[in-house]
Amino acid sequence: MNEVKISIIGAGSAVFSLNLVRDIILTPNLNGSTISLMDINEERLNAVYLLGKRYINEANAKFKFEKTTNRRESLKDADFVINTALVAGHDRLKKGWEIAKKYGYRFGGSFHVMHDEAFWINFYQFKLFDSILNDVLEVSPNAWYVQLANPVLAGITYLSRKYKKVKIVGLCHGFTGVYHLADVLGLKKEEISFQIPGVNHFIWLTHFYYRGENAFPIIDDWIRKEATTYWKKCYPSCDLGPKAIDLHQKFGVFPIGDTCTPGGGSWPWWYHINEENEKRWNEDPKAWWESYFAHGKRRVEELINLSKDTSASVSNRFPLKKSNEIIVPLIESIVCDIPRVLQVNIQNSNNFVPGIPSNFEVEIPALVSKKGIQGIETEGLPKPLTMYAIRDRVAPVEVELEAYESKNKELLVELLMMDPWTKSRELAVNFLEDILSLPYHEDMRKHYK
Amino acid sequence: MNEVKISIIGAGSAVFSLNLVRDIILTPNLNGSTISLMDINEERLNAVYLLGKRYINEANAKFKFEKTTNRRESLKDADFVINTALVAGHDRLKKGWEIAKKYGYRFGGSFHVMHDEAFWINFYQFKLFDSILNDVLEVSPNAWYVQLANPVLAGITYLSRKYKKVKIVGLCHGFTGVYHLADVLGLKKEEISFQIPGVNHFIWLTHFYYRGENAFPIIDDWIRKEATTYWKKCYPSCDLGPKAIDLHQKFGVFPIGDTCTPGGGSWPWWYHINEENEKRWNEDPKAWWESYFAHGKRRVEELINLSKDTSASVSNRFPLKKSNEIIVPLIESIVCDIPRVLQVNIQNSNNFVPGIPSNFEVEIPALVSKKGIQGIETEGLPKPLTMYAIRDRVAPVEVELEAYESKNKELLVELLMMDPWTKSRELAVNFLEDILSLPYHEDMRKHYK
Repeated sequence: MNEVKISIIGAGSAVFSLNLVRDIILTPNLNGSTISLMDINEERLNAVYLLGKRYINEANAKFKFEKTTNRRESLKDADFVINTALVAGHDRLKKGWEIAKKYGYRFGGSFHVMHDEAFWINFYQFKLFDSILNDVLEVSPNAWYVQLANPVLAGITYLSRKYKKVKIVGLCHGFTGVYHLADVLGLKKEEISFQIPGVNHFIWLTHFYYRGENAFPIIDDWIRKEATTYWKKCYPSCDLGPKAIDLHQKFGVFPIGDTCTPGGGSWPWWYHINEENEKRWNEDPKAWWESYFAHGKRRVEELINLSKDTSASVSNRFPLKKSNEIIVPLIESIVCDIPRVLQVNIQNSNNFVPGIPSNFEVEIPALVSKKGIQGIETEGLPKPLTMYAIRDRVAPVEVELEAYESKNKELLVELLMMDPWTKSRELAVNFLEDILSLPYHEDMRKHYK
Repeated sequence: MNEVKISIIGAGSAVFSLNLVRDIILTPNLNGSTISLMDINEERLNAVYLLGKRYINEANAKFKFEKTTNRRESLKDADFVINTALVAGHDRLKKGWEIAKKYGYRFGGSFHVMHDEAFWINFYQFKLFDSILNDVLEVSPNAWYVQLANPVLAGITYLSRKYKKVKIVGLCHGFTGVYHLADVLGLKKEEISFQIPGVNHFIWLTHFYYRGENAFPIIDDWIRKEATTYWKKCYPSCDLGPKAIDLHQKFGVFPIGDTCTPGGGSWPWWYHINEENEKRWNEDPKAWWESYFAHGKRRVEELINLSKDTSASVSNRFPLKKSNEIIVPLIESIVCDIPRVLQVNIQNSNNFVPGIPSNFEVEIPALVSKKGIQGIETEGLPKPLTMYAIRDRVAPVEVELEAYESKNKELLVELLMMDPWTKSRELAVNFLEDILSLPYHEDMRKHYK
């Protein structure tokens, strides 16, 4: 028995928390552990807590289950701090997008504007990250800090440099897109193996095996014979749509998960120059986001209903079946010394992805065990994709972080000058002022001089 | 006396060759050396040779002076191989620009299209570089290869990786823009010192001293009191024009020489979005290039006349006064072990400019002596400029070199997708096809599949 304390920051995200509870229930090695839910929204926290408690009882599992609105209380003696919090919600994101559209911004490689890692969202995330990490340093300096909250790319880059004493790792379920690919190809999840290096939201399948044999020919066979049929029924901006296939054929490797979908910023811009072109590629980022937001809203509503209906079975709604998420496997591997190769986001300190700066984030496979998280050296990406990564992801993120740290508004303009849709410097300045002048952006206005 | 052999490849460039001859005449330490002019254009070669001979005779200098159209003959026993050759001339450059303009390309951060390092010029340069270096390896493996020919950035990056046994250095007179700055500020050239790191054509004055004191306040004083008067008389796209000053005020450091002028690619795009905006910044890259070409043509004509008028004095036209060029000082430093700090282009092997990949070219100060060229570690550029360097210079150059080495036409399209003026992928593909289908681009058509 390995009793650890797992603190979940932002636990009011009901779907996330219940998924995590479920995976922990299904991991008997962690029996007796403590799960501490923390959120500043007491109402949501309570609802999730009551649901989780019912879930654990139904499964007759052995966990200490706690809740608190006091972060330091939750962090105290924590072995794992899981950050899934989002400070500024979707309404603010969408309001910013509305303004941006007037300035000619479009979805498509616009990573800091028309994407959920918009600079006016990230700013509040950075402040939260700093505040959590400072608490961790004081209250639970030996804990693992596991970040699921976006931006993983900028966040892990920033925190790994600044809080060198803390054990930091980012997780993103984007890589599980490879299971979608396997499923569509008719390959069993358990029989594939893969390498998907890159930087977060820009990861590419470079090695793909099915029962030990190169599975790229299976992809290419599917493209020849079945893709067009599949595209007739798949949703717009699908991760296996014509855009993904085109990118695969151009670069040799395969974009996984959010790499080219709206969730990852709809890279690159040239599929998105106008609606006609988007249609041609079966792309509709606007519809994709609407469906994403609606889906999230529906699930929250379902959970609220479930929490009110105290006679209902939680496990009926959330059948006890392990998810694809790797948070609990990661915890188990570290705590119980069960070595696993998992997809993680860490600093590129050992040239895990050649061509990405060594003090920048990368997403790579790592060996996870009691020893910790040991990144695995990959062959990286084909040269042009490495260059797109440093051009479209490294450079703007560095400018965004420099802007945040130096509190220099001018650098936010430079960030915008790197956006593919910025039409002129004047428009960028005006757009920035419009964003900053939103009533709830007082903190940001004060920060950036 | 230190008798060395200096081979000049592309010696038909009369102005360059006569400048070099003059600097050598004025360097008595190199008396007795051999200057070997090589060019495939016999007529121009002869004219330059006869002029140089008269020049040396008039100065009563002691040099062996030779000419040949056979490169290997010139390279034989050479200690220094100076490459100043341009394979595809200005007419081809301008023809490409004409086509590009139809596709919406503009001067302004368009490094591989609306710039003299256009990909259809560079291709022939790369082939030449390979061919010279292969000869050097066979005929004069111990020689220093000194490249003045463009592209210095892509060339030094490419050659330093491929020909590790050859001593390679690039020189560019762009940094002498700092003397222009000093002159306008009223500071004596001999009394300033400076550091101007970066990558070629993207170098910034980060340290500037006059008589040992920080001279940036002198710049800022000049901006306040004299700049507007100066701008009334300076030519468009001047390296001390309002655009340069604006960049200085935005980034703290000062753009030097070609960094923001048409000669260096008129970085960045946002001053050049339309003619109205260009006017506002006193920018006119088109006029700048026309004047540049006309000036070159005039000087060539002058020299042709001078070469025909055998009774005229060459030293009247070219007074015996040392130029700002550092080729001969570099040679003298190496040959005679006279240590000098000179501005060179070499591989960033020792992190001379932090943030630029270690296998990429940088332009930095180096200590030059008999020991060779030892790069000096700089503090590099401010973070946002480092990011612009990797975004706008490193990434596209890497893609261009990968395209050249893999002979992959698709990668030339990716190169175009990184240009700030590319409107769509379709237009990029069509533009590329237009360039490739020019009758004299048969070699290029065959190379890129």
